[in-house]
Amino acid sequence: MYIAQPIEWTDRGVVMLDQRLLPTEEVHYTYTNYRGVASAIADMVIRGAPAIGVAAAMGVAIGVLHSKAKTVEELRPELDEICAILAKTRPTAVDLFWAIDRMKAKFATIAAQTSDLDQIRAAMIAEAKQIHLEKKATDEAMGRFGAELMPSEGRVMTQCNAGALATAGIGTALGVFRVAVEQGKKLHVLVPETRPYLQGARLTAWELHKGGIPLTLITDNMVGHFLKTGTVGAIVTGADRVAANGDTANKIGTYQIAVLAKENNVPFYIAAPVSTFDLSIPDGSYIPIEERSSDEVIFIKNVRIAPDVQAAHPGFDVTPARYITAIITERGIARAPYTESLRALANAKQAASV
Amino acid sequence: MYIAQPIEWTDRGVVMLDQRLLPTEEVHYTYTNYRGVASAIADMVIRGAPAIGVAAAMGVAIGVLHSKAKTVEELRPELDEICAILAKTRPTAVDLFWAIDRMKAKFATIAAQTSDLDQIRAAMIAEAKQIHLEKKATDEAMGRFGAELMPSEGRVMTQCNAGALATAGIGTALGVFRVAVEQGKKLHVLVPETRPYLQGARLTAWELHKGGIPLTLITDNMVGHFLKTGTVGAIVTGADRVAANGDTANKIGTYQIAVLAKENNVPFYIAAPVSTFDLSIPDGSYIPIEERSSDEVIFIKNVRIAPDVQAAHPGFDVTPARYITAIITERGIARAPYTESLRALANAKQAASV
Repeated sequence: MYIAQPIEWTDRGVVMLDQRLLPTEEVHYTYTNYRGVASAIADMVIRGAPAIGVAAAMGVAIGVLHSKAKTVEELRPELDEICAILAKTRPTAVDLFWAIDRMKAKFATIAAQTSDLDQIRAAMIAEAKQIHLEKKATDEAMGRFGAELMPSEGRVMTQCNAGALATAGIGTALGVFRVAVEQGKKLHVLVPETRPYLQGARLTAWELHKGGIPLTLITDNMVGHFLKTGTVGAIVTGADRVAANGDTANKIGTYQIAVLAKENNVPFYIAAPVSTFDLSIPDGSYIPIEERSSDEVIFIKNVRIAPDVQAAHPGFDVTPARYITAIITERGIARAPYTESLRALANAKQAASV
Repeated sequence: MYIAQPIEWTDRGVVMLDQRLLPTEEVHYTYTNYRGVASAIADMVIRGAPAIGVAAAMGVAIGVLHSKAKTVEELRPELDEICAILAKTRPTAVDLFWAIDRMKAKFATIAAQTSDLDQIRAAMIAEAKQIHLEKKATDEAMGRFGAELMPSEGRVMTQCNAGALATAGIGTALGVFRVAVEQGKKLHVLVPETRPYLQGARLTAWELHKGGIPLTLITDNMVGHFLKTGTVGAIVTGADRVAANGDTANKIGTYQIAVLAKENNVPFYIAAPVSTFDLSIPDGSYIPIEERSSDEVIFIKNVRIAPDVQAAHPGFDVTPARYITAIITERGIARAPYTESLRALANAKQAASV
């Protein structure tokens, strides 16, 4: 089954698919230096927290690979500069900093062992590839746990794009659908377009279509109608942040889908890696909601759709835990009471359903 | 306060505002023959059931005015032809047929009294103007009843465009807001954009902005977030058809707004003239849902926003009566049990709250 590759390490450089041009054009760029990778992250050629983490790691690796440093001591300040520039690209993405820190730690370890620059370069490249592989493994584990919760046939629904394009693996929510379909389940995905950015229409519809998974695109205000009149068996969305009590921040619109799911007795699942847990905050009221530009509401692909009026653009909303049937992670499935089940998963080393 | 005039009878002909070009252009056309009026209705220069009814009546009047018939007997088949062509413009609009039938009835009455063509022409024009005045009076009565239900200040919400543009009066839902504001209530209207046609963004935002009523445009998937976190005091939408038990068909998205309103303890009102009642059907399951072109989902103003996939486009949905706090009409306010209150209003001659 086709899996979108938003980013790949190749002998020619870091290859990225320009997600801004989807679905009408499929354009790949090959970045041969870290500044190019940094610009690609900043300009949103690539998006999705896990995918950004992979891009940052590969950016560090390619920076080291093409460094003209002749000694470790010359390379060390250059690495700091590379990391600083990559860290400035998307200042709120947790995965970005995590990946950069991990690459720095790898450098510290390997530089303590050898002063052979070829060995150091090879180790840094291997580490970036390893991060990518780990993201893929996380998605696949999540997909296997989640697939068990999917109906054997019928309609399912998602929101935004929690797919391969966002994670550089098989995706979180879309990974669940993908594994279920590979297991022989006959799913048909309802895809809300997800205004204002249209990630559903542009990215999720494209991914599923390329992957041969049947789908129907709907507008965001059709969700309730289809939950009431259709036979939707499950909803799976991603998450940006999960509080200790299970309250979950995700793309704007997720909250209302969850309410409509509960009202119509449709199970509503979150698929999110343990890295999105933030057990330091007791509930969703501690999650700040990013207010984005109102131009993104008033213009669609540079076409004005409204007069020059005030428009609101909260980028995310918070879904209270009481609307969430279960949270699917790479270590197993958490159910209420989440305060206990999330903590157990966070502390678990092995995958296990709790 | 500025009130949009989607249609006006003038000495030069029937003047219409081209609603397809809003909000970026305000273009008026003057139609001097009935075929022009028919094309305007068919091509959606004008839309909204009550406004279409007014347009059809004026179309009949201008057809009679410019007829070359020299006797009533010559005019009679010509009138039939005029009415037949106007009736073919929007085959499902109840108001269209109602207005044409009323113009035919007027002709029958006046032609039985006189054979003076000038008198007949004057009577037909007067009847079309009278229909327009009655639509305005209906909206204003509805506005007065509804305004009492509005909070004295704060946020309110609507859906689609149930405004002056749709009714050729002050509007139904927007008429309620307008009267409340004129009474000194300080309302701020949250306007969902209402995909796929964007009537909220294009028409409601434009009407409110021109009328000086404060508004904030939102996307349809922000409704839940604002009902949960904001201080929305009331929601008012229009209706296309109200069943005997109060179940109400309206623009797609209305159902989910009503569910989210109930979940967040926000009163949800329908503003609709008694002419939208269909007491012949016991509940909403008898209301057919029009399936429209999927191109309207996949293209926004001719710009492709999704790959070539299947898209659904139910034009309307049904809101069960249990989510509706009250139904505002020109004869008073109906509350549950609607089977009794709607029948009482349908039988009432005078405005009275029941």
